[in-house]
Amino acid sequence: MPTIVVEVMPKAELLDPQGKAIAGALARTGRGDFQVRQGKRFELTAPGDEISQDLLDHVREIAADVLSNSVIEDVVAVRVVSDAEHHAHTGA
Amino acid sequence: MPTIVVEVMPKAELLDPQGKAIAGALARTGRGDFQVRQGKRFELTAPGDEISQDLLDHVREIAADVLSNSVIEDVVAVRVVSDAEHHAHTGA
Repeated sequence: MPTIVVEVMPKAELLDPQGKAIAGALARTGRGDFQVRQGKRFELTAPGDEISQDLLDHVREIAADVLSNSVIEDVVAVRVVSDAEHHAHTGA
Repeated sequence: MPTIVVEVMPKAELLDPQGKAIAGALARTGRGDFQVRQGKRFELTAPGDEISQDLLDHVREIAADVLSNSVIEDVVAVRVVSDAEHHAHTGA
């Protein structure tokens, strides 16, 4: 079944306290000096065998309206993953 | 500056209540019948101009030890993003 990945990140101009906390923890534990931002990754699996342009457009709408808050977040990617990429971690 | 994206998802065999809640909301609002899983996406920006194999290996360790809980989550990707991809949404 086709899977669509949606990636959402906090807007660049906004503070990201979760990311800051992780960056602080990495520095304190001697793991190095990184800037970190934390966002979300969704996998949407649709019934059926293939992904039409309509379905992809529909998922783009869902990403903008439901999966992200446009005041504070950007949808940075809406992409179809290959079965191979998907199954590599689901073990299917 | 080079940016490395780390993607973490709940293990396939475990329940994902957040994903289930989103799937329920999509169905209730007439947006269609999807399976949804929610994970995390991190952007780590390292100082310096390029990403060495050592740095990438180090980030893989951070992904496994700090950014994910291996009991319930899988690291599904550790990948370098191009400046173009990164700047597209940071507006830099």
